[in-house]
Amino acid sequence: MNAFGKLFKLNIFGESHGTSVGIVIDGCPSGLPLKQSDFEADFSRRKSGAKGTTPRQEPDTPRIMSGLFNDRCTGAPLMILFENTNTRSGDYSQLKDTPRPGHADFTAHQKFGGYQDFRGGGHFSGRLTLGLVAAGVIAKKMIAPTTLSSSILEVGGSSDIEAALDRAIENKDSIGGIIECTIASVPAGLGEPFFDSLEAVLSHMIFSIPAIKGIEFGAGFRAAKMTGSEHNDNIVSSDGSTETNHAGGINGGISNGNEICFRVAVKPTSSTHQTQRTINLRSDQMEDLTIEGRHDTCIALRVPVVVEAAAAIVMADLMLQAQKVKRIF
Amino acid sequence: MNAFGKLFKLNIFGESHGTSVGIVIDGCPSGLPLKQSDFEADFSRRKSGAKGTTPRQEPDTPRIMSGLFNDRCTGAPLMILFENTNTRSGDYSQLKDTPRPGHADFTAHQKFGGYQDFRGGGHFSGRLTLGLVAAGVIAKKMIAPTTLSSSILEVGGSSDIEAALDRAIENKDSIGGIIECTIASVPAGLGEPFFDSLEAVLSHMIFSIPAIKGIEFGAGFRAAKMTGSEHNDNIVSSDGSTETNHAGGINGGISNGNEICFRVAVKPTSSTHQTQRTINLRSDQMEDLTIEGRHDTCIALRVPVVVEAAAAIVMADLMLQAQKVKRIF
Amino acid sequence: MNAFGKLFKLNIFGESHGTSVGIVIDGCPSGLPLKQSDFEADFSRRKSGAKGTTPRQEPDTPRIMSGLFNDRCTGAPLMILFENTNTRSGDYSQLKDTPRPGHADFTAHQKFGGYQDFRGGGHFSGRLTLGLVAAGVIAKKMIAPTTLSSSILEVGGSSDIEAALDRAIENKDSIGGIIECTIASVPAGLGEPFFDSLEAVLSHMIFSIPAIKGIEFGAGFRAAKMTGSEHNDNIVSSDGSTETNHAGGINGGISNGNEICFRVAVKPTSSTHQTQRTINLRSDQMEDLTIEGRHDTCIALRVPVVVEAAAAIVMADLMLQAQKVKRIF
Amino acid sequence: MNAFGKLFKLNIFGESHGTSVGIVIDGCPSGLPLKQSDFEADFSRRKSGAKGTTPRQEPDTPRIMSGLFNDRCTGAPLMILFENTNTRSGDYSQLKDTPRPGHADFTAHQKFGGYQDFRGGGHFSGRLTLGLVAAGVIAKKMIAPTTLSSSILEVGGSSDIEAALDRAIENKDSIGGIIECTIASVPAGLGEPFFDSLEAVLSHMIFSIPAIKGIEFGAGFRAAKMTGSEHNDNIVSSDGSTETNHAGGINGGISNGNEICFRVAVKPTSSTHQTQRTINLRSDQMEDLTIEGRHDTCIALRVPVVVEAAAAIVMADLMLQAQKVKRIF
Repeated sequence: MNAFGKLFKLNIFGESHGTSVGIVIDGCPSGLPLKQSDFEADFSRRKSGAKGTTPRQEPDTPRIMSGLFNDRCTGAPLMILFENTNTRSGDYSQLKDTPRPGHADFTAHQKFGGYQDFRGGGHFSGRLTLGLVAAGVIAKKMIAPTTLSSSILEVGGSSDIEAALDRAIENKDSIGGIIECTIASVPAGLGEPFFDSLEAVLSHMIFSIPAIKGIEFGAGFRAAKMTGSEHNDNIVSSDGSTETNHAGGINGGISNGNEICFRVAVKPTSSTHQTQRTINLRSDQMEDLTIEGRHDTCIALRVPVVVEAAAAIVMADLMLQAQKVKRIF
Repeated sequence: MNAFGKLFKLNIFGESHGTSVGIVIDGCPSGLPLKQSDFEADFSRRKSGAKGTTPRQEPDTPRIMSGLFNDRCTGAPLMILFENTNTRSGDYSQLKDTPRPGHADFTAHQKFGGYQDFRGGGHFSGRLTLGLVAAGVIAKKMIAPTTLSSSILEVGGSSDIEAALDRAIENKDSIGGIIECTIASVPAGLGEPFFDSLEAVLSHMIFSIPAIKGIEFGAGFRAAKMTGSEHNDNIVSSDGSTETNHAGGINGGISNGNEICFRVAVKPTSSTHQTQRTINLRSDQMEDLTIEGRHDTCIALRVPVVVEAAAAIVMADLMLQAQKVKRIF
Repeated sequence: MNAFGKLFKLNIFGESHGTSVGIVIDGCPSGLPLKQSDFEADFSRRKSGAKGTTPRQEPDTPRIMSGLFNDRCTGAPLMILFENTNTRSGDYSQLKDTPRPGHADFTAHQKFGGYQDFRGGGHFSGRLTLGLVAAGVIAKKMIAPTTLSSSILEVGGSSDIEAALDRAIENKDSIGGIIECTIASVPAGLGEPFFDSLEAVLSHMIFSIPAIKGIEFGAGFRAAKMTGSEHNDNIVSSDGSTETNHAGGINGGISNGNEICFRVAVKPTSSTHQTQRTINLRSDQMEDLTIEGRHDTCIALRVPVVVEAAAAIVMADLMLQAQKVKRIF
Repeated sequence: MNAFGKLFKLNIFGESHGTSVGIVIDGCPSGLPLKQSDFEADFSRRKSGAKGTTPRQEPDTPRIMSGLFNDRCTGAPLMILFENTNTRSGDYSQLKDTPRPGHADFTAHQKFGGYQDFRGGGHFSGRLTLGLVAAGVIAKKMIAPTTLSSSILEVGGSSDIEAALDRAIENKDSIGGIIECTIASVPAGLGEPFFDSLEAVLSHMIFSIPAIKGIEFGAGFRAAKMTGSEHNDNIVSSDGSTETNHAGGINGGISNGNEICFRVAVKPTSSTHQTQRTINLRSDQMEDLTIEGRHDTCIALRVPVVVEAAAAIVMADLMLQAQKVKRIF
């Protein structure tokens, strides 16, 4: 199932080399102002073309096909479509027999019995995150004055990001990275004691983003090495402000009003120009595999805005549930 | 909302110092054999009493109130009830005014407007994980021959667990830990490309467990420091077996048939015998707070079976969706 | 699945001759006052004992096991339990081989592979509607000043209800009836254009009540015989009041602020003292079947309060979604 | 929310006079053969142009934008788009002030605060049922050999349909009708005891179709006038076949293997050429309203294929849940 959310609800569709990718966004408050140019800033942060990213470029023009009237959300579902234009009609049929290590080739084959659209990653492509970023733009409008920001802490194990990229490009290999996201001006009381804790819902959404392999809130894995008296955040004001923020703004699964803070691990892009070994499903023999084509050296560079959007989407849904976002703007 | 799952569906209820805690489990296949003694092994792994755990002990007897007939699941919902017997009628009213650092006292107050049952953590208590472990026992039966195991990698930052516990007890402080869980004999093809990736659904459930602040799959945060050619797992057989398992058994959000492997960070118990500082909500002044009572020095010791149950629950739900578990046994 | 609702969420469990029946109610606003005696009035309307109803009587005492503290809802799930006391340990094993016409015996056997608890209707028993009525009591408190009422229009095809009952008792047969429910002081704007129209959600819930076989809103089936100019309700005020109410208070699936009005058809109880014919599944021969025991001559007499509760539950859920019910009372 | 289904899941979007209407269909088994021409037969049954239907005609060409590859469903969501071409740029602004009796004008205004797209019914338009019919085509392929059929029993209160239409056209008024739908070769065991009874889920979906105001299963409202011994269907074979079918193929909310049979009441189209009275929201005075434009005299004529599609969608979802439809074709 390709759906997320309770009151702010997303459905994502499309394939990398099909006609289009897109998203249906249900639960936008009626009256919320929205125009095409609202998407530009976040879309440009996601765009490729800079050092370390793929040279494939798409115009990424959002076509708002429904749910908008006179530049305002109507309350009916928004459908936003992105046509695919810059697809190369290369030969992907090889992938059916020799699944690429680290990719979804083998798992998609198992899940869908060989009927998946395997061209360019198909429905698994990072291109589908365009819809997430679009939904994030809308979510951010809904939740104001709550704001989000995200940044890259390190790539390839180094905080000197420029140098790490140069090294990876020289080695014709790909690298991963760590991204931090913070959410400020959060109302206290979001999240549920069981099953829908704030960490649970945020992580559910964040792990929908391709290439994410870890998440930690506040002190996270470092918390496991601390004592309780070190880790506990002393409460210094009746608004819930704490001296430190080891909890990452969440206690008992519920926002405490301090900044929410989490970090995610992005694995290196599976596509690398290095030769790899895989099985040929037809011959049942292992063979060398070299992946041609246009790829991101470090996909992590393009992920911050996607993580931010994902978190904004969760906040919009939870704030609707808590009646902190109006139904009619 | 206190519900989880699509086809194997849980609803959890109860409070630490109320009459009882319990769970409703819907979607158990009819005909699945079940008797009270099936719960014993996992319940004893969760029990307190050992070094580093609270001396509060409950009989933890599961009363199966519905959905069972002649020692088989009927297909109607199971309701399993655990009565609370060993509750101390202590004075918890202090907590209303002076929220304990690191606890849900402040957030619960914000969310529920002061109407929450604050005695012993109320609905936020770790005691509610009894229901999870019960559901896990049933899930494990459903998904056989898929099996799970979990273990403690370290507590208080040390893999010498005995020594770390002794030190914490001496310091009258609490400590956290890291737990690893693996799932073996997993069918390939579980999980969805978007929103319900296997990592997404597992992490959603795992973060429902109190005190969890991080999760990573396979190489996890270490993956962020690797190159693609290091991280990619070469496929060595047409059954999808890989040489290494940096992906933790999951590619593109979908199980690849290799062992699923993830690690979680458990923060130190918030309750510590050290004196802490917090705000008095009535006087709006900070004051010293000393927490009396029975507490776990290292709650992480009791968490492995809960993590295992949580993961088994997810597997049962996904395997039902993939028609890998029968509706009638 | 035995669940209903989005923000006001029910899970029902139990069997007629098991230990108990009950319900978990999630999404009650914290602070909502609630005490055991609140249930009495509606429970007594559902009770048997009057002419035309079964002599089996249960105390129907609601045990509120969780989610209540100091006579107020805490915001955590309420679990309400009803113990079964007056069960006769009769021999129901005959039912396994000779499914009763009109009952769920055959269908339960097909669905659950023979593992269902077949004693007294098991999980299919009308006794489970106790939980619905309990949830209805809470829902009514939440939605005030919106109010509901329901009444019997006819039984056995006659509006002289007393006479119809006497005739049925004399004939040792059962009879059905038609019930009308109205909802007053409804906010306009509840319901969704597609899939969750107000009629859709109300009918979903109403058809959960055993023995209901039809529902119609406003003019209903009579509307199919009218012309548009007869059927359309002229709008006479800017608050949406209409001259007539053929639409039953719903246009385009959404409440228009007028009284919501619907009628339901209750079939005659399947249990009748008349001899019937059925198949013996073991011998594959048809045979005579005579049903002994205590039964309702006209279950419709006990249904109005259940229909009313069901409708109140839907209103509570939709009014929460529309932010017309507070999260904290 | 504009979504339906658990494992076969629909999301509908679009407006009558916007760019397009469409649907996202998730949960189609991979490998299911599908091509554009598969839709033609059912689409032509829904088309207008015949006597008693509106002269507005659209090409209704389904553009399958995703989820299809080499004429087979991939397992990823199908998005099917229908562009609007034949929209008249008439002046609908009058509707904002003078809500049409029987339409959703007033309720949409209340729900969406005046931001709804009011042109041609907007998101409430019957044009959105195109997506339902498309999903029905796919559902029917999934559930074979289960088959559906539907027919008009009467329009305007008469079974002489031709004559009733002539009369209505002459009177410049609209008329309603009654439609019967049957489902044959149904596996026994579909539906759930509580909340998701087969009647509950079918009626939920059916009431999503605009203009439906009543539904009854089997003997339906007539059952309320019968005795138990008349109504009960004697079981004549161990496959569950019954002598009569007053239950409409459903006992205890669960299919019994006999034909499922239900009838729905379709109200007369609200648009009629007769002059009506309504309030002017701006002046707060009542005034005469005459509706111009192209309308259906009897929308019921076009509804059978929509009802059939709706029922097929429910069957597909329930049969997936019961593992009676394969995940991979």
